[in-house]
Amino acid sequence: MAEQDGRKEPLITEITPKSEDFSRWYTDLVRRAELADYSPVKGCMVIRPYGYAIWEFIQRGLDSRIKATGHVNAYFPLFIPKSLLVKEAEHVEGFAPQVAWVTRGGTEELEEPLVVRPTSEAIIGTMYAKWIQSWRDLPVLINQWANIVRWEKVTRLFLRTTEFLWQEGHTAHETAEEAEAETLMILRLYKEFVETELAVPVIAGRKSASEQFAGAERTYSIEALMGDGRALQAGTSHNLGQNFAKAFDIQFQARDKSLQYIWGTSWGMTTRLVGAVIMVHGDESGLVLPPRIAPYQVVIVPIPRGNWRETVLPHAQQIRDTLTAAGVRVMLDDRDAYTPGWKFSEWELRGVPLRLEVGPKDIERQQAVLARRDTREKIPTPVSGLAGRVQELLDAIQRNLFERALAFQREHTTRTSSWDEFTRTLEGRPGFVVSPWCGSEACEAEIKGLTQATIRTLPMDAEPSGAPCVKCGQPSVADAWFAKAY
Amino acid sequence: MAEQDGRKEPLITEITPKSEDFSRWYTDLVRRAELADYSPVKGCMVIRPYGYAIWEFIQRGLDSRIKATGHVNAYFPLFIPKSLLVKEAEHVEGFAPQVAWVTRGGTEELEEPLVVRPTSEAIIGTMYAKWIQSWRDLPVLINQWANIVRWEKVTRLFLRTTEFLWQEGHTAHETAEEAEAETLMILRLYKEFVETELAVPVIAGRKSASEQFAGAERTYSIEALMGDGRALQAGTSHNLGQNFAKAFDIQFQARDKSLQYIWGTSWGMTTRLVGAVIMVHGDESGLVLPPRIAPYQVVIVPIPRGNWRETVLPHAQQIRDTLTAAGVRVMLDDRDAYTPGWKFSEWELRGVPLRLEVGPKDIERQQAVLARRDTREKIPTPVSGLAGRVQELLDAIQRNLFERALAFQREHTTRTSSWDEFTRTLEGRPGFVVSPWCGSEACEAEIKGLTQATIRTLPMDAEPSGAPCVKCGQPSVADAWFAKAY
Repeated sequence: MAEQDGRKEPLITEITPKSEDFSRWYTDLVRRAELADYSPVKGCMVIRPYGYAIWEFIQRGLDSRIKATGHVNAYFPLFIPKSLLVKEAEHVEGFAPQVAWVTRGGTEELEEPLVVRPTSEAIIGTMYAKWIQSWRDLPVLINQWANIVRWEKVTRLFLRTTEFLWQEGHTAHETAEEAEAETLMILRLYKEFVETELAVPVIAGRKSASEQFAGAERTYSIEALMGDGRALQAGTSHNLGQNFAKAFDIQFQARDKSLQYIWGTSWGMTTRLVGAVIMVHGDESGLVLPPRIAPYQVVIVPIPRGNWRETVLPHAQQIRDTLTAAGVRVMLDDRDAYTPGWKFSEWELRGVPLRLEVGPKDIERQQAVLARRDTREKIPTPVSGLAGRVQELLDAIQRNLFERALAFQREHTTRTSSWDEFTRTLEGRPGFVVSPWCGSEACEAEIKGLTQATIRTLPMDAEPSGAPCVKCGQPSVADAWFAKAY
Repeated sequence: MAEQDGRKEPLITEITPKSEDFSRWYTDLVRRAELADYSPVKGCMVIRPYGYAIWEFIQRGLDSRIKATGHVNAYFPLFIPKSLLVKEAEHVEGFAPQVAWVTRGGTEELEEPLVVRPTSEAIIGTMYAKWIQSWRDLPVLINQWANIVRWEKVTRLFLRTTEFLWQEGHTAHETAEEAEAETLMILRLYKEFVETELAVPVIAGRKSASEQFAGAERTYSIEALMGDGRALQAGTSHNLGQNFAKAFDIQFQARDKSLQYIWGTSWGMTTRLVGAVIMVHGDESGLVLPPRIAPYQVVIVPIPRGNWRETVLPHAQQIRDTLTAAGVRVMLDDRDAYTPGWKFSEWELRGVPLRLEVGPKDIERQQAVLARRDTREKIPTPVSGLAGRVQELLDAIQRNLFERALAFQREHTTRTSSWDEFTRTLEGRPGFVVSPWCGSEACEAEIKGLTQATIRTLPMDAEPSGAPCVKCGQPSVADAWFAKAY
């Protein structure tokens, strides 16, 4: 919408080159592609229609997976009374410094201030205590789509904002084993979802104690590598043990008639996933959207020659209708005020996976020219059978984006047990550094202080190398994935 | 979930009879059917999975209509700085007394307090001023799904809660005519949606000045009649004129190069629609859900005789699979702990449109017995062709619910130009009273003071009777629809 003067000129020049300044490239791109904008509220963003459409595809793909695994959606209040937030000691310690406080309602000062939910364990736990009586009521498998507020000092569009959107699952189980199985099932679901729909490869594993969720027994996450070699936590799944059950008194009568605390989990993914898509796939020309979450999968640009509205446009419209009928999301850009060259740049910038050009010569030849956003390959394609070919190409682009990102991640993963190589790698070529770690929080903190790298994850399936800790030389407990992170 | 002792007894007795106390019947039903529950936050409710599933079907049906008419979704911040809320004088006057104030963020007192959005004209208007430059940028047709907070003194589950969920459309147009056309198009869309999907007949019309949205030029609404004869506003569509454009400086360069203010609209429907469904269709046995928004359209209750898990259950499962494959939403209630009689009552209470019973005799006869929730008719049906028959019956139930509600609405609409009959009607048999009105706010206020009835709507298409005002005897400007309202 925010059109500028000089609307016929390619506007790519507004965007800082990715190679020059990744961070500015990212922000420029988010704004110029109209994914999001700053708002008059400090730290809060506006998600614009093009960005929100991506989020809607993410929601759809994730929601169907959450439901297919037996969960149901519900909605809990935005506000949490202070007295509830403070019930779980670690939880309040973790969240109290970054919540927004409602102290006045209408014309009255509130007797008890309310926090705007920074996460919903406290309010949901309170309701579970009311609803759950017997082992027959278990498991409770509830998910919520909601907005969340955390008072952030430093914010970045999509990645870290004072308000963001997410889903949060909250489950209650009869046994510790079931809770752990749920936590890991969701972790696998998250990995499969992000890799399939967003074409973003991730490493799944457990967090070290210092990176755990405030109030969890064990936190698992999936970690993705961005185009600048920094890691991004893309989703978390927490085994809460009985911590919240004890804090909120969520008890049930067990099969043996004894009174037991439930075992809990919680897990979430947020609008930051949109940021991950941009930073993993984007290039110097702009966004590159995976077809499965692209608002438009194909943009048709008619080539205006002579009385093109009578000659070319009807063909373009017919192609649009054919593709739409085949379930492809199509935008026909028939605007007069812009040249084809401007349109090419514009839709490249907006990351549309396939461009379809059609001009008088193409009509003569009964073809259209397809141009892939990912490889820039131009593919003249007969009009007959076009829809099938487009579907094939969209699948090929989706696959290629994943493979390209996976190759990048592998190229930017260094395995070393040498402290010297560890620090050199983190100074120079960024990425993951996989190194043996002794398991000590002090050692982890020292590494962070010296290199800014944190333990992103402790993968579950990998065999530890058994080498001594990369920092202190003590026996290692795991090969940890270190990285500088968002 | 909240299972009680005595789980084998029908629990309908927990619900106050509808004929005895409609209001208590409603609240009992909402809680007992697990649609919603009270929360520890004053005035805020929890929407439980069964209630939320209904809302999801409402969202789906409404969202697809909003998109089909060219609108796109976006997301704007939850918080609105005080300085923005106060820009439109009538708007702030209308909303300031009922907003929640955030005064602290993290550890700092905010310099400027933030309100939690009571509606989003102020924040969206601010962004539109930034985005809209030229007539080429118009129309802007944006919708948002969001949570809203209004500090209510008296609340009622779904109908009036401090926090609720809604969609709010906000559009900007080049001309006054386009804005009015949009406002009315949405009004028609709302009416068609509510009547088609919720089977709730509504009267569409314009609000009198005293019932207008704070800041609107003209407010239109759809009004439904509840089972107790009180009216419920089910959706509103506002023509904002240039009020917000001027307050927020939303200007564009017109085709003639002059600088003009945009013409705005806004419109919304909320989770109170779930309340409307309950109060329009519900009966002494509980909910009656229209098939199109019922989380389960069919519940299968196997009749346990002998080793039924080996004999009857496989048949029930096969029927479930057949119906599911045909796109029907099915619940197979194979729980051991409950008798068929208990299950019948339970699923009646939860309003499932069709019950399907299958026992050993039915299997012999290659049939199942269908029972309609709306008419209680029992229909033995051959298993072959079952899915088609079920679809027909679901359609018939949807139609019947609408027709029944329409008949009720007509029976409870009185047309009179006699003040005596007017007051008698509102004392006794409740419903709509359609009467000539002089157009004076003072007269409207006097009628409200004497009878509690307000003007719900001034229908657009009806010919006014031309009779003198029912109250003051002055010449009338319209036949107004009066009612006591929620």
